[in-house]
This record gives sequence, structure tokens and C-alpha cells, in this order.
Amino acid sequence: MKLKMETGYKNVEGGVCAAAGFSANGCNCGLNPDKEKNDLGMVYSEKTCSTAAVYTTNKVKGAPILVTQKNLEATGGQSRAIIVNSKNANTCNADGEQKAWRMCELAAQQLHIAPEEVVVASTGVIGQVLPIEPIANHIKTLAAGLSPDKHGEAASAIMTTDTVKKEVAVEFLLDGKVCRLGGMAKGSGMIHPNMATTLNFITTDAAVSAPMLHKALQETVKGTYNCLCVDGDMSTNDMVCIMANGCAGNQEVAADGEAFQAFQKALYLVLLNLTRMLAADGEGASKLLECTCAGAPDLDTATAVAKSVIRSPLVKAAMFGCDANCGRILCAAGYADAEFDVHKIDVALASAAGSILVCRDGNGIAFSEEKAAAVLAEDEISIRIDLNQGEASAKAWGCDLTYDYVKINADYRS
Amino acid sequence: MKLKMETGYKNVEGGVCAAAGFSANGCNCGLNPDKEKNDLGMVYSEKTCSTAAVYTTNKVKGAPILVTQKNLEATGGQSRAIIVNSKNANTCNADGEQKAWRMCELAAQQLHIAPEEVVVASTGVIGQVLPIEPIANHIKTLAAGLSPDKHGEAASAIMTTDTVKKEVAVEFLLDGKVCRLGGMAKGSGMIHPNMATTLNFITTDAAVSAPMLHKALQETVKGTYNCLCVDGDMSTNDMVCIMANGCAGNQEVAADGEAFQAFQKALYLVLLNLTRMLAADGEGASKLLECTCAGAPDLDTATAVAKSVIRSPLVKAAMFGCDANCGRILCAAGYADAEFDVHKIDVALASAAGSILVCRDGNGIAFSEEKAAAVLAEDEISIRIDLNQGEASAKAWGCDLTYDYVKINADYRS
Repeated sequence: MKLKMETGYKNVEGGVCAAAGFSANGCNCGLNPDKEKNDLGMVYSEKTCSTAAVYTTNKVKGAPILVTQKNLEATGGQSRAIIVNSKNANTCNADGEQKAWRMCELAAQQLHIAPEEVVVASTGVIGQVLPIEPIANHIKTLAAGLSPDKHGEAASAIMTTDTVKKEVAVEFLLDGKVCRLGGMAKGSGMIHPNMATTLNFITTDAAVSAPMLHKALQETVKGTYNCLCVDGDMSTNDMVCIMANGCAGNQEVAADGEAFQAFQKALYLVLLNLTRMLAADGEGASKLLECTCAGAPDLDTATAVAKSVIRSPLVKAAMFGCDANCGRILCAAGYADAEFDVHKIDVALASAAGSILVCRDGNGIAFSEEKAAAVLAEDEISIRIDLNQGEASAKAWGCDLTYDYVKINADYRS
Repeated sequence: MKLKMETGYKNVEGGVCAAAGFSANGCNCGLNPDKEKNDLGMVYSEKTCSTAAVYTTNKVKGAPILVTQKNLEATGGQSRAIIVNSKNANTCNADGEQKAWRMCELAAQQLHIAPEEVVVASTGVIGQVLPIEPIANHIKTLAAGLSPDKHGEAASAIMTTDTVKKEVAVEFLLDGKVCRLGGMAKGSGMIHPNMATTLNFITTDAAVSAPMLHKALQETVKGTYNCLCVDGDMSTNDMVCIMANGCAGNQEVAADGEAFQAFQKALYLVLLNLTRMLAADGEGASKLLECTCAGAPDLDTATAVAKSVIRSPLVKAAMFGCDANCGRILCAAGYADAEFDVHKIDVALASAAGSILVCRDGNGIAFSEEKAAAVLAEDEISIRIDLNQGEASAKAWGCDLTYDYVKINADYRS
């Protein structure tokens, strides 16, 4: 997948350790019986970080979410480290919060920081008791091995049904100083974020105040993670957390303005690319789908239509089958929670193989099935909807619905 | 599937012709290249019928929906016949309304009634032009063959990806007279009704005024069709229509009261059983899922939770895999659009093979995987959620998510 970048922003390696002052590590502690797979990850900053996070709006919240929220409240949005495990979501079990807090204590002890300075997260099966011993037994080695080179070890520790690690980082200038912002994310099912996201950790060496960090994060997730849908199931453990340690030496971004805009653009590029990676690696996915709704009377309408189409199982299955079924796209646009005139809609399908108009003025039109099949045979498909009744535009990302989605999810627990 | 009945209501054969004075027919007119399959159906009443209908709330509406709405407005809720085709939804094409109206004219001509007295419907591929010639060429034979025995021919004419015909009818007493109410329905994909349903036609020989028929229908779909979800895609052509011709000779039900209640119960039983049939025959389905949410503070909460769980692709895939994954059920309950305390939820899974508790007080509990697998091996599964915070209860119906759903929908148009 080709990364989306803009002038002034350079893609760099390093993921969650691309920014100065951050180190990371990951290991298999035994939660995952496959010893080849990491299940415990740690991220550490040598300096205290302004920290902001957004969380799932699911009423059933993972215990780590609740503990992280409390910690960030206690410190006024400061943190030093992240501890995260996969294989067990530590959610819907009686002692979840104690266990999540214990994870903070274990990490803090090794790192000589306060437990409240630790962001804790878990992902995996919901409703099972989290065994703490494997974590306790490996925390010392994990901390001892922290290194800026080990970002990939941490990124692999948060993978569940993901088939590839998701890491992105960018370099940009702020106040004349070279800054970096990078992160790691996990997919790949139970993904339909709402005012939040999947599990994502972003770090930056830019100096940004906690309130401005929160503002940048809240605004940026709206058009990135919150426009991502793999299957319509909103996870209990969604969280995106950003830590800014100020090691780049810029003057702290503490208000709106040019520097804030430049910083937010870096955050946008990283979240955008992680969103696209998450969609492309959605459970069982064979294609990345990007739906653009343009010509909308307002942003809410554009977003509602793009998300409705990207969520539709029938559209997703048609894309898997390389079937240019414009009726399903119109149908899904039609049940979007928004008001607009359906008789002005144009729909085109596009990919590296070209573009083909399949609907004009709300009606299906004749098109070359041969050309349509060629367009849809690519692994990155763009569904372009033009409502032709305004200037607003929005994008949403998802993937096709395949046999493998069913296979993966028919017996996930075993 | 065993039908649900109540004292005083007897299941009878005859579907849409079970009630006196109704006849039907179906044929292959050539819309479906498979000559073994009916694609054109007709229902006729020898007397004028009070008629009520509810329609999809999708903004993209099939042309036949618009024409039926106009007809029923023009006649003040009176009709004499139904004309319906499958294979082509006559939706999202420039001349859809003209074609739908032409179908009314063709039927009316044969039946010596006014075109406005015809209810017209179409189901099938969206966005393609409907060829009217096949219908014009077969309308005379279709009308000539009308018979009370041919209800099954009509029921098969509305099938798309359905694997079985759906017909139900009941007999009951109203005002001392034997009445009948029956109907036919089609599935089996693009099903997530909202204030409407899939394509359904109900007939009765009870005398009921058009306003009371409308009231009974509106109230009854809420707890039946509107609690049905196969895939979360709301169709453009959803419609449920009920015709009452008064042939039973009862005093017309024109107000609330005992007779209205008795009539509404009959309607409920027919819609309930059709709903269950539609769920059981959902695209690719191997299991009927029924989710009950009890102990809710109010009906809206109970309904929202039951529908959220029944819609979840992850719950559906787990049921296909016979995986008692309570975490996914809690997750889907948690993102339902309703407010309640998630720490009081109990969840049990039940079937003909027994019942097993998998969650208590919002937490997963240990259970026998062996017993759970036996419970989930049945083809009718009950997901029982108790919120333990009130008296309201609601049910929703759906099916599992299987490889065949993907297979059917990856290339539906061909």
C-alpha cells in the first residue's frame, strides 16, 4: 500500500520510536501459546509526556480503559509509559480493574516511575479472566530490553488477527526544529469506531500542551479512525493515545495557530495512513475500499453517506466478487442517516485500472462489464459518490467481505 | 421450523388465499431465464378490500413503492389486486414509475378493475431497466389462471435468493364468524427493516376499516418485521401490504376494542411466523437466531439491545462456528443506542439441547464448553439477555453469518 504524504512531511521509519526519547520492546510472555508471537509490549519515554486519549463509546468498556482514564485524570494528562497485552481484552471480568492497575504497578516498578504515569491497554478475547503471572514474570526482561530499535517488537505485541504490523511515522518542521510523530495500531476485526478508534499509540517529540494535544487528537480522529469500518462492531477496548515528550526542543504548542496546524497535519497523516492500513488488513480482507462522498450539502451528510456505504455487507461482498453492483451502493446511501435528494447521485468505481461511471442522476446506467471487472480486480478500490448538491466531501475506509472473514470469526476463541 | 400459535388461533393452509374471496397465480414470464422459476405473481380479491401498507424508510425507494403509495392515496385505502415481479427491482432507473404504472394497467385490464386498485411491487436487481414486454405477454394467462389453489405459485413468484416459500395463515373467530388471515413473504438478503419490512402480502376475509387496518399493521410490524435483521442492509423495495375484503361477514372492525385486539393477534401470529421464516432462510443461513432482551427499563431499550446483538457480524459468525463467545454478545449490547447499567447483564444461550449461562453481572463466567457446543449445534438458537434492571422485554430475529452469505452476494447480479 502506497502511503499518502504531503509536502513538508517526510515518511520515516521507526514507528512508535521514530520520535526522539522513546524506546519500546515486546515479548511473548505466555498469554499467546504460540511462542513465536509477541503478546506483551511496552513503550517508554525518557521525559514526561503531555498525554491525550480518546476511548470507545461502547457502554461495555474494557477495564484497562477505565484505569487509563483514571491515571490521566490523576496526573492531569501526563504519562511516561505504555504497557499493553494481546490475547485477552481484560474486559467483562470481575477483577479486571485490579489486574489493569497491577499491570501499571509492575511496569512502574521497573521504570522507576509512578503507576499513574502508565497507560495500560489490553486486546483479545472478552469475558475471560486475565492471568497476571505471565506478565509479572516477564516485566523485568521486557523493561531491560527497551530500545528505540524495538518499535517493531511492540507493534507486533498488539496484533490479534492482524496479518501485518501497522507502523507509520513522519518528520516535519515546527518552530524551525525537526520533529517526528509516529505510531502503531492494531486491527483487524470488531472495528467500527465511534468518537474513538481501535488500539493505537502515537508518540511525538514535539512539545505540545496536554489540552492542545487533546484538541488535535479529537479533531483528527473524526475524519480518520471514525470513518473506518471493518465489520460494524464497535470494540469495547478502543483507544487512541498520544504522548508528546518535547525532546525536539520546539517552543511548546499551547494555543491555536500555525504551529498547531502544522502539528495537526502530521498527526492527520499518521492517523490517515494507519486507518488505510487497518482497512486493508481488515479481517479476511482482499481489498481496501475507499468511499468518497462529494457534492454533499454539509460534512455530516457526506460522512454519513460514505460510512453507510463502506459498512454495507452487500456492497462489501459485491466488491469481493468484483461485481459493479451500483444498486447496492445506492441502497446503502439511501439508508444513511442524512437528508438529501437521491435523484442527483452519480456513482463511479475507480482503481489503478481506470474509472467507470455506473450511476447517473440516481439511476443505474449501461456500462462495460468487462471494464468494470478490470477496475474491480485491483486490490485498492475507490467508490466515488457525487451527490451533486453541495460542496462538502468526506471519505470512509473499509474492506471487502470474504470467506475468510467468516472463517476467522466462526471460531475466534480457540 | 415449528410455528408459534396461541389458543383460539389455528394454523391453516392456503397462504395468501386462505381467506375467502382471494385467488392467486404465478408464472415464469421470462424475467428469470430459469423457466422452472416463477417471476410474476398476481393476487385478486372478488370484493373491494380495505388496504393498508407500510414501506421502507430508505430514501432510495423502488418505483413500485411510489406508485402503490399514490394508488392507495387515490382510492382512500381500497384495492382489488396485487401484481408483483421478481428478478428486477424496478428501482433507480429513469422510467421506473411509468413501468410500475403500466404493470397496474395491464393487471387492471385483465381483471376489469381500475389501475389505481392495483398494488404493485418488484424485487430483484436494483438499477436496471425493467423490460415490460415479458409481463405484457403473460398477463392474460396469469389472470385467466387465478385460483384459490394457486397461492403457492404466487408465493414462489416473489422469491429471490429464498430457498423456500414463506406462507402462513391462521383461522380465528371474530364477532362469532370464522375469519382467516394469511400471507406470503420473501427474503432473504438486504434485510434490516425500519418502520417497514421486506416484501410481504397479507390478506384477510375479516371486515376491517382501512384506518384500523393501518393501525394494526403499524403496531404489529414494530415487534415483528422491524426486529428482523439478516445483514443490516435496508432494502429500497420493502413493503408490507394487507388487504381485508370482509367476506367473513363479521361486523366491520372500525374502532379499538375486543374485536380489534382479536384481529391484531391474528395479524401478529402471521407476521411473527413469517419473520421467523425469513430469519431462518436468511441468505446463507444455517441457523435461526432469536435474541430476547428481558429485564430492561423500557421497551425501546430492550428492542435496541436485542436488535444490536442480532445485527452483529461477529455474534453471527460465532453462532455459525458454534462458539459460545459471550464477549461479542456483551460488546454488541454495549454499543446499542440505549442507556443501561452494563454491570447487571446476564446472558444465557439456549436451544432444544438445553440452556447454558455464559455471563453473570456483566462478566464472563466459566462454563462447560462441551455443553455449550451441544446447545449451539442446534439449528434454532436463543440468545437470552437479562439486563436485570426493569420489566420490559423484546425479541429480535436473525441468522448466522456463513460462507454461503459471502458466496451468494459476491456475484448476485449474474
